[in-house]
Parts: sequence; structure tokens; C-alpha cells
Amino acid sequence: VPVESASTPAAPRRRRADAERNIQRILEAADEVVRRDGADASVEEIARLAGVGSATLYRHFPSRMALMEALFSGRMEALCAGARELAHQADADDALEVWLRAMVSHLIEAQGMLAALTMQGVVESDPEDNFASGLAIALEAAEELVEEALHREVIRADIRAHEVVDLLVGVCMAVDRVRHPELQPDRRAERLLDLILDGLLLQRATGS
Amino acid sequence: VPVESASTPAAPRRRRADAERNIQRILEAADEVVRRDGADASVEEIARLAGVGSATLYRHFPSRMALMEALFSGRMEALCAGARELAHQADADDALEVWLRAMVSHLIEAQGMLAALTMQGVVESDPEDNFASGLAIALEAAEELVEEALHREVIRADIRAHEVVDLLVGVCMAVDRVRHPELQPDRRAERLLDLILDGLLLQRATGS
Repeated sequence: VPVESASTPAAPRRRRADAERNIQRILEAADEVVRRDGADASVEEIARLAGVGSATLYRHFPSRMALMEALFSGRMEALCAGARELAHQADADDALEVWLRAMVSHLIEAQGMLAALTMQGVVESDPEDNFASGLAIALEAAEELVEEALHREVIRADIRAHEVVDLLVGVCMAVDRVRHPELQPDRRAERLLDLILDGLLLQRATGS
Repeated sequence: VPVESASTPAAPRRRRADAERNIQRILEAADEVVRRDGADASVEEIARLAGVGSATLYRHFPSRMALMEALFSGRMEALCAGARELAHQADADDALEVWLRAMVSHLIEAQGMLAALTMQGVVESDPEDNFASGLAIALEAAEELVEEALHREVIRADIRAHEVVDLLVGVCMAVDRVRHPELQPDRRAERLLDLILDGLLLQRATGS
């Protein structure tokens, strides 16, 4: 039967395309619901908004933590993928600063989400792996941005990308580890980043 | 028997004084041996150098980790206790910087020791408690030093002591968490501290 034999090799490819479209929809829906509800985001609502059944959602993301990890690592990849473009915009002397602010904001939100889920007894799939892969992506973006900032002479000449990443990681870890219940984590992190940028940048492109 | 009845109430006090002298001797010996041999320091050698038996040492410090924790928290207390005096020396405009450099050096050494012992399978007695008590001591010292630095106008006027401590903690945690096998942890930490101090201090009292 020629029709069947023609469609058979195409079927797995079509199934893969369907699956990828579903994953994409689920992550977009999760992005929206998590922005509104944080760690309390309802997985059922995410499935509904994505237009998929709960079974489909759980097939791709077996746990709430798996879904959150995919969401936050996707956001970070997008932030870092955008860094190259940002770095080379003619009028973006502050590209490194803009990226660092976005990274701090993202990392503090991810940290808060992780803490909330951990308090609910949910366990991160592989903290070491997640950290290492996030770090590698961030370092690549930082290299792009620092190189361009050096070229434009908007940053001290002796700085290295891995030092910028160390400082970024340090800010987020300090906010996570040193408790100040009366201060907002994101405001604290922004402030620490400001203090650091004042030492790194030769002219501050944006005020704080 | 009058002699016995006179000596009896004094005995517990004398035993306490003996015990404290022994603890002091053991910690001084540990300080010396650990400076030379790091995490491989022999507990037997420490007892010998202190002039006490191994049984006495183990009665006061039941494990190698207990001894190291006492040694490093003692060093940190000494560093922080010295901060008040340092802050008020007439010619010490760089007191905060001197203290921060000493703290970073101390914390990186303590971190290395902890990592080495952990690799040997030794477990820290209570990481949360140790961190919290160290933090409280550091914050008190930083408050003294920052207040004086503000008074002398050698630091940006909007800085707060808890922010300085956050940055200090961040430097040490980043060096611990982000691996750079080809770089010395203490050199990395000094460099990150330098980058931060360039943003905080209005005039650098010492070069780097």
C-alpha cells in the first residue's frame, strides 16, 4: 500500500514536531502563570492555558520541579543568547550592565522559586549539573559582553569575563545565604550589583 | 582535717583553670601545626607540642573537625575583636580594607580546610550554626569599621556595614562554588575584593 509506506517514515518526525510544539506551548504557559503566581503556579492551569492535557504535560515534565527547571533554564538561555546581539548594538555602551541587571533579577527569582519548592519538600533534580550548565552559558555570554565593553573602553581594562561572573554569582549567593528578612532579595541584589559596577565601569551609562 | 576541707572547694576551680590552660595550649599548638601542614595536621603532633596527652586532647576536642572548628572560629573571633582597636588607630584610614583582606584570607583558608576534611569524609558539626555565629561576629566588627570609615570619609557615604559583609561573603562563596582549577583560591578572592574595594573606597590607602 503506497500511501502507508510513504507516511510511515514521516510519522515519527511528525510526532517529534508535535511534541516539541507541545513543550514550547507548555513553557510559554508556565512563563505566564509563574510570573503571576510564583511557586504556587497550578500545573493544571498551565496545561489548560497551553491547550494540552495534564497527561501530556506530565509526560514531558514529570514533576513541578522539572517544569520549573526547564522554564528557568530556558529563560536564562534566552538571556544569554541575546547577549551577543546586545553587545554589538551600536548604541549599547551599557550592554554588559543591562545584561548583568537582567541576570541578577533572573537568578534571584529562580533562587526564590527554588527555595519555595524546597520548602514544599520538592527536590531539585541535580543541583550540581544545573549550576554547572548555567555557569557555562553565563560565562560564554559574559565573554562576549566583556570583550565588547573593553573594546568600547567602558570598563576597566584589566577585567576578565570570569571575574564578572564570579561577582555575579557572589551577589546572588550572598543574598541567598545571608538572611535579612526585612529586605527584599531583588532590591538587595540590585544594590550589591550597583556597588560592584561602580568599581568596574569607567562611566556609568545608566543611573541606579 | 582542716587542710582537706580548705582545699576541697578550690579543687573544681583549679580543675577548670587547668582545663582552660590545656585548651589554650592545644589551640596554640594546632595553630602552629595547621599553618605548616594544613588539613593533614597530625592530632598526635598537636597534643605533643601542647604538652598534653592524646586523651586530654580528645576529651576537649572529640574529633579532628571539632579541633579545626575551634581553631578557625578562634582565629576569626581574634580578627574581629581586633577590629575595634584597628578602627580607632589615628593613622589607620585603611582599617576597613586591612580587616577585609585579613577576613578574606582567613575565610578562604577555613574553606579550604573544610573542603579537605569533607573530602576525607569528616562532617562539620553544624554548618548552619557555624555560619550564623561567624556572620554575627563579622557584622559587629564591620559595623565598627564602616562607621569609622564613614567618619573619616574614606568610603562612599551611602554604604552600610551589612552590605560590606554581603560582598565579603559573596566573594568567598563564589570562589568556593565556581571552580577554576588553574587559579589559586586566595589570589582569586583577593582580586575580587580589590575590584569591589575600587568601587567602595574613595581613596585607596594601599595598592594591590
